[in-house]
Amino acid sequence: MSLLVDNIGELVTNEAGRGEGGPLGIRRRAAVLVEDGEVAWVGPAADAPAAERRIDARGAAVLPGFVDSHAHLVFAGDRAAEFAARMAGQPYTGGGIRTTVGATRAASDGELRATVRRLHAEALRQGTTTIEIKSGYGLTVADEARSLRIAAEVTGETTFLGAHVVPPEYADRPDEYVGLVCGPMLAAARPYARWIDVFCERGAFDADHARAILTCGQAVGLGVRLHANQLGHGPGVQLGVELGAASVDHCTHLTDADVDALASTRFDCMCHEGGHTTTVATLLPGAEFSTRSPYPDARRLLDAGVTVALATDCNPGSSYTSSMPFCVALAVREMRMTPAEAVWAATAGGARALRRDDIGVLRPGARADLIILDAPSHLHLAYRPGVPLIRKVLHNGVPQ
Amino acid sequence: MSLLVDNIGELVTNEAGRGEGGPLGIRRRAAVLVEDGEVAWVGPAADAPAAERRIDARGAAVLPGFVDSHAHLVFAGDRAAEFAARMAGQPYTGGGIRTTVGATRAASDGELRATVRRLHAEALRQGTTTIEIKSGYGLTVADEARSLRIAAEVTGETTFLGAHVVPPEYADRPDEYVGLVCGPMLAAARPYARWIDVFCERGAFDADHARAILTCGQAVGLGVRLHANQLGHGPGVQLGVELGAASVDHCTHLTDADVDALASTRFDCMCHEGGHTTTVATLLPGAEFSTRSPYPDARRLLDAGVTVALATDCNPGSSYTSSMPFCVALAVREMRMTPAEAVWAATAGGARALRRDDIGVLRPGARADLIILDAPSHLHLAYRPGVPLIRKVLHNGVPQ
Ligand SMILES: [Zn+2]
Ligand SMILES: [Zn+2]
Repeated sequence: MSLLVDNIGELVTNEAGRGEGGPLGIRRRAAVLVEDGEVAWVGPAADAPAAERRIDARGAAVLPGFVDSHAHLVFAGDRAAEFAARMAGQPYTGGGIRTTVGATRAASDGELRATVRRLHAEALRQGTTTIEIKSGYGLTVADEARSLRIAAEVTGETTFLGAHVVPPEYADRPDEYVGLVCGPMLAAARPYARWIDVFCERGAFDADHARAILTCGQAVGLGVRLHANQLGHGPGVQLGVELGAASVDHCTHLTDADVDALASTRFDCMCHEGGHTTTVATLLPGAEFSTRSPYPDARRLLDAGVTVALATDCNPGSSYTSSMPFCVALAVREMRMTPAEAVWAATAGGARALRRDDIGVLRPGARADLIILDAPSHLHLAYRPGVPLIRKVLHNGVPQ
Repeated sequence: MSLLVDNIGELVTNEAGRGEGGPLGIRRRAAVLVEDGEVAWVGPAADAPAAERRIDARGAAVLPGFVDSHAHLVFAGDRAAEFAARMAGQPYTGGGIRTTVGATRAASDGELRATVRRLHAEALRQGTTTIEIKSGYGLTVADEARSLRIAAEVTGETTFLGAHVVPPEYADRPDEYVGLVCGPMLAAARPYARWIDVFCERGAFDADHARAILTCGQAVGLGVRLHANQLGHGPGVQLGVELGAASVDHCTHLTDADVDALASTRFDCMCHEGGHTTTVATLLPGAEFSTRSPYPDARRLLDAGVTVALATDCNPGSSYTSSMPFCVALAVREMRMTPAEAVWAATAGGARALRRDDIGVLRPGARADLIILDAPSHLHLAYRPGVPLIRKVLHNGVPQ
């Protein structure tokens, strides 16, 4: 079936150098033809081809669907009380992850599946058409494998995070736990995972452990991503660059050497920006919001030529938001990104962090994942913070 | 018709000292009976009376509808570009108000009505069941009167804000403009207005002008509220106390004397809190978010015994959000309010700022304005920032 999205006031294509130029490749008075779940044609509304079905955007802005490249949706339990205590002054140390591990292990498959589906649907209603989902609250061979199996029911972007924390039963034997992760746990996770990730941070995994785990994952064909430099300076970002990671996530505490390392992965590209970095810096301002921590400096990264993505880090401990529009608004308010940079980072940036060229962009051949806003411009995502502005979502060409 | 909202996991009543105590008067496993647009009964779900219709809250949290006591919805035009420029470094001076005045004067009644209704409906979907709407973008006798006439079509809480700024045509004759406001403009506005308000700030109206205008309004039966101490220290808060204002709004820059003046209006009350202040401090964190300004210190006010309300300040220049949940999340993150204090301020606090005892509370006789959350606890409004958590709204007992 063919479907025409017509009468688009502002079309964000993210197409390099097209339309009005700038990072978003904006076209005015445009239309998009969808066929077989893909974008078949993009052009002026006046030239729109016929289609079996038509959606009238009534002059609104249309964007590629959000690409949320960092989320932890497979868990059980609620940490609202811990959140309230933290807001009353208790610092975030990551220690609460173990609370969720206990609840997750005790949960049935059905309970975990219900949570994943509820949050996945909630994200989709807010315009997220691609979401990465990590394991990391099971931390046994069986619980990590089932976490990924359940995640894989709703997304192809699954990430094995057996190295989230050292679970309590291995507290005094971290080397042994790393052996478990690299051995039987990785083997059990592999069929359901596309990526491997490590929480490389003081109190979690050091550079040697992280390198060992990520290298094992690479050896069986998984792509590399890292939690790095969230709570303090550390080796994570440079390790990510060393291993050719698709993304290093958080990047809250960076030295000049960290920024230089990321910038050194820049390669030339035909697009208007002239290039991108192999390793993307994925910023997760929801975590800083919900832990009352200083925000990462997006401006510094952008000015150094580093490719930046935005994601939610949706998880029950440090960032229980599934809202990409909220992350865009925070990025503009708190991280000195322009609205255009933030919208690019939440769409095309997320796609680069997942090494995908079929999403985060609206051009012929791309997946027909798109959002019609209740607003005339992408600017409104930052200009109207907190307001649910997602009027309609198309996922694989299908209106949701 | 009678309607039972049943199977409520957490009921926020805001009823003084009831239920679990604390500001929210929380009851567990509760039900609410609605008859003729009012709350007829509140009690344990196990004792719920029969009703003609039943809504199953499925264990979710139920709250009084939000009371947004400060919004500017009667305007034309869009200031998204000004917003983007400000985020790129240009400071907010309030000067952009004149842009909106020009567009508003040029708009038809139908255009203004469409905007008011669109934003009113948007706020209602987000749980706002009472909203105050100000004039202030007309600034002629005819344009202020029609702004209030249109506002009065959707709310009883209308506020005459002819003294928003001195319009360009009176730039060199501010005394003359104050005479116009106190005379023919007030006379034309009076039939549609319940409140009078002045923007008492350097660059807008000084204490003498503000006192003259507010006193004229009081003399014809309008209640007093003020925009005070937003951009810097000034006489606004103390003037509000002097005149017995229901609320002083913004309160971003306060001296100890300002806080003392507000605290001095405290009176005894039978409720668990032991008292409230006659003049409420209404905080508008959306404005600080969208102008990248330092937030007001809610903790200082609360610790001094001042009653605090939260409102959106929804307007196209400095705070284009209609989301009370967003304001609650900001209040917790940025203003050191507990989630319970923030939820109270966004419901009962707003009611006090409007001197209403029939809203912001769920007890027999109150208006049946209530929200069913997509969450088990009011904590989630801060714990899950940006996520649309309003599952269902009842306004005057009618499911929306
Ligand atoms: Zn994470
Ligand atoms: Zn205002």
